[in-house]
Amino acid sequence: MSKNNRIKDVTMIPLGGLGDIGKNMYLVEIGDEILIIDAGVMFPEDDLLGIDLVIPDFSYVRENSDRVKGIVLTHGHEDHIGAIPYLLKELNVPVYGTRLTLGLLEGKLKEHNLLRDSRLKVVNPGRSVSVGNIKVDFIRVNHSIADTCALAIHTPLGPIIYASDFKFDQTPIDGEVADFHKLAELGDSKPGVLALFSDSTNVEREGFTMSEQVVGNTIDEIFRGARERIVVATFASNIHRVQQIVNSACKYNRKVAFTGRSMINNVEIARNLGYLTIPEDMIVNIRNCSDLPDNRLVLLTTGSQGEPMAALTRMARGDHYHINIRNGDTVIISASAIPGNEKLIGQTINQLFKRGANVIYEDVSGVHVSGHASQEELKLMLNLVKPRYFIPTHGEYRHLFRHAELAKSSGIPEENIYIADNGDRIIFTENEIKQGESVNAGHIFVDGLGVGDVGNIVLRDRRLLSEDGILIVVVTIDQHGTILSGPDIVTRGFVYIRESEELIAEATSRLEEALKECEKNNVTEWSVLKNKIRDTLNDYIYKKIKRKPMILPIIMQV
Amino acid sequence: MSKNNRIKDVTMIPLGGLGDIGKNMYLVEIGDEILIIDAGVMFPEDDLLGIDLVIPDFSYVRENSDRVKGIVLTHGHEDHIGAIPYLLKELNVPVYGTRLTLGLLEGKLKEHNLLRDSRLKVVNPGRSVSVGNIKVDFIRVNHSIADTCALAIHTPLGPIIYASDFKFDQTPIDGEVADFHKLAELGDSKPGVLALFSDSTNVEREGFTMSEQVVGNTIDEIFRGARERIVVATFASNIHRVQQIVNSACKYNRKVAFTGRSMINNVEIARNLGYLTIPEDMIVNIRNCSDLPDNRLVLLTTGSQGEPMAALTRMARGDHYHINIRNGDTVIISASAIPGNEKLIGQTINQLFKRGANVIYEDVSGVHVSGHASQEELKLMLNLVKPRYFIPTHGEYRHLFRHAELAKSSGIPEENIYIADNGDRIIFTENEIKQGESVNAGHIFVDGLGVGDVGNIVLRDRRLLSEDGILIVVVTIDQHGTILSGPDIVTRGFVYIRESEELIAEATSRLEEALKECEKNNVTEWSVLKNKIRDTLNDYIYKKIKRKPMILPIIMQV
Repeated sequence: MSKNNRIKDVTMIPLGGLGDIGKNMYLVEIGDEILIIDAGVMFPEDDLLGIDLVIPDFSYVRENSDRVKGIVLTHGHEDHIGAIPYLLKELNVPVYGTRLTLGLLEGKLKEHNLLRDSRLKVVNPGRSVSVGNIKVDFIRVNHSIADTCALAIHTPLGPIIYASDFKFDQTPIDGEVADFHKLAELGDSKPGVLALFSDSTNVEREGFTMSEQVVGNTIDEIFRGARERIVVATFASNIHRVQQIVNSACKYNRKVAFTGRSMINNVEIARNLGYLTIPEDMIVNIRNCSDLPDNRLVLLTTGSQGEPMAALTRMARGDHYHINIRNGDTVIISASAIPGNEKLIGQTINQLFKRGANVIYEDVSGVHVSGHASQEELKLMLNLVKPRYFIPTHGEYRHLFRHAELAKSSGIPEENIYIADNGDRIIFTENEIKQGESVNAGHIFVDGLGVGDVGNIVLRDRRLLSEDGILIVVVTIDQHGTILSGPDIVTRGFVYIRESEELIAEATSRLEEALKECEKNNVTEWSVLKNKIRDTLNDYIYKKIKRKPMILPIIMQV
Repeated sequence: MSKNNRIKDVTMIPLGGLGDIGKNMYLVEIGDEILIIDAGVMFPEDDLLGIDLVIPDFSYVRENSDRVKGIVLTHGHEDHIGAIPYLLKELNVPVYGTRLTLGLLEGKLKEHNLLRDSRLKVVNPGRSVSVGNIKVDFIRVNHSIADTCALAIHTPLGPIIYASDFKFDQTPIDGEVADFHKLAELGDSKPGVLALFSDSTNVEREGFTMSEQVVGNTIDEIFRGARERIVVATFASNIHRVQQIVNSACKYNRKVAFTGRSMINNVEIARNLGYLTIPEDMIVNIRNCSDLPDNRLVLLTTGSQGEPMAALTRMARGDHYHINIRNGDTVIISASAIPGNEKLIGQTINQLFKRGANVIYEDVSGVHVSGHASQEELKLMLNLVKPRYFIPTHGEYRHLFRHAELAKSSGIPEENIYIADNGDRIIFTENEIKQGESVNAGHIFVDGLGVGDVGNIVLRDRRLLSEDGILIVVVTIDQHGTILSGPDIVTRGFVYIRESEELIAEATSRLEEALKECEKNNVTEWSVLKNKIRDTLNDYIYKKIKRKPMILPIIMQV
């Protein structure tokens, strides 16, 4: 392959977002230059015991850091910007995004003490930037956060359109419809759009996703009928939702209080940047809201996912610092369950009902709409853009698969559709799409301040510990192997000791026998002794109560 | 209160099934006699680490065992009969139920070595039994398992109707519609129905629950189009569903193989009792099913909830012993997600798609209907039965609450509706419904062979262990408190040791310092030493990496 051809090759490498929902990140390689699109976090599944966050594996970026020209961001959700602080610790390059996106990122960088050294560059929707030699257009789309853009990355083979999170809202709250004209123009350009990477989240839903305005109307109806306090829980980043709630509050002569750290932060950022309009005298501090008559108050809160420490959950449990739910309150949960959170949300709803609230939630009402495109919007995107190649993105495997089927039915030839996996090197050449050598794209776990110091072995141990607890056996021996003290059994997470004194006594006497036998046979090797302890206890405990706690022998020599 | 009046009082005590889904159990007390209705298990929530099953607290039954006259069962689901073996270990009384219900119970009793001593009494739907002096009618209703009955318990104050799990299927597979006539007759009797206890599971759904026949039609359509192997996962106890799948297999000239322990067991029991008709030559052993052409096979399997060890999950992962999913297979998941299982099911679906299967699941098709009544059926039950008092049952609090609202809208006076909690003593008298002193009705945990030997403290420890692991510090001292060996730190589930040698080394040296100080000050009390160790480590570890592992000091004296 000639040098000339090589430069014409264009490579896309997903480092996250495929096969699982979260930690979205792509690399674009054109010639020697690398452009990073987004770097998000994923919230850990239940089986990642004790893990706080999951971020993408940056090792490929690290190895090629001198070639990275910059980072472009599509929007300000955690699963797209949450890992940027971890990335910027390794790599100081400019970050491009819309105003609200960078506003939200600033807060994070401040927390990580990185803001001073960061180079954040605001790009308005509809404008373009050059990152190194790579030109990127920011194209307005709609989503559940304001200021979301799809990206057109201009390559020698034609533009690549990256639309990871979007919907088309024909009547958006801020009046800013998606830039259909730009998408159409790119679709009509010569030699045409090289590839479309498109949002697969809602590919299972037929028709169109409803407009955000629908929620506004529902909320207005509810406000009209409410006679006492109103509490609304929603995603803090959904600024348009917040605006609509504030508008209804205004209309029905209620003041607004905010609670929950991310709600307060996001509202402050959005107000400062002009994305949210709230007259100062409409806001009341939560500390003072009990001074207002019940029919004059709206409380906007976090906790729509039933998160145990969030404000709504506390109010439902009755341990919020300033306000608790009581008989007559109207509580609106203006969100849908993120898969895996159904149980927690259900618990919160039960508690709210128990406290006498009138609870309005998704299953029985229209108080939430999705931020992702349904089938007809996905088809519209395909037909506007008319890409040569199609790569479904942002979804679990079944979403990607079904999005591929949808693209086929919209006329994209099967051989031009590529269902990718994280770490795949997707190479576009003049004539084909092909797969190069993969790069590392695993999960890196963040636990407390540690990044990557917890992995599968530690997690396996945590899992074992969580199932049947641990039995620790301590024996002190002298240098000849004579037992001076022990064996002593200490347990945690195993059984109530008072319920099982006999069990432990019998286990101890079996251990004593086993160790005496070792002594008699002059067995002094620690590894042999430890195995003896493990086997003896394992057998006995399993036979008696069919459990397999972790058994940890510790030998002390004096 | 005169003796005469007291005998007329009727008490119902729920020991489970209210406020959470599962472990359904009620006690009926009339005069000196106690009747038990159902005794089910609950599958543990994720936070019940290591727990296998949850059963009701039998302590009230134990204290009053001489008054218990018998157990009546509504149907054969685990959440209604699963705890019977544990109950019969404490109480040898006759058990009444329909044929299939007792058939399924027999299998359980065999496993627990209890069958020989049990007194199981078959009651046909439409018939009555006397349990002690209490007359109970078994009234046919529809549900997702054959042979389900509502119960009418005749009391001096009128009949109580207990309909915990039901729907009204106007076109059931076995032609056995619910016994509307009996319900109507009771509703019209004098002095009328005392109370209705009715299923709240689907109270959030409008209209009627679809007939099981709808599923049959959908499955038939899918079978007609399938060219290669067909795999259907469903609940093993849904005998009507199994029959419909077998019928379609027959029609399209396919043989049927069964896999999964509960599927094989339930099919065998249902065939033996005549609830399932499968010609012998239609069945093929799973070991031989690869001898059949792909378009001649249907595989019926467990695993519709994505359970990690179930047959479908293994086939999807590629580690089933006999058969694995491959390109071209049609896989039907004929079930809906039990709340909390959404993630696991999603994972299985993703893996099935990855293996090239054509996967048909609830979100995108009509391959499952619920076994519980929707709003219109619940209203029909209320209108047929016309109860004086109404107690919503079988549901989380929000379901009970909404069912109460529905009953109100159907004309039951608010003061005659009672939202109960597990352990409540619901007393009916001639003139009122009132609450007596509660009885114990907590959760008893079954872990391995242990019943009740794991409780909240053990679970709290398992939770702590699961989050950040454990640091064990061992020190050997002589009788004067001089340190002979240690402190040694051993960790499990904490961090990769190779990543944190420095951390552990520094922690050890801080411990040494702290202990030396104790030695110097002649501190020899073990509790003080242990606290010193705990505080020193806690502070250091939290400051360094913001984690809080369990810290367990062990002092050995020689």
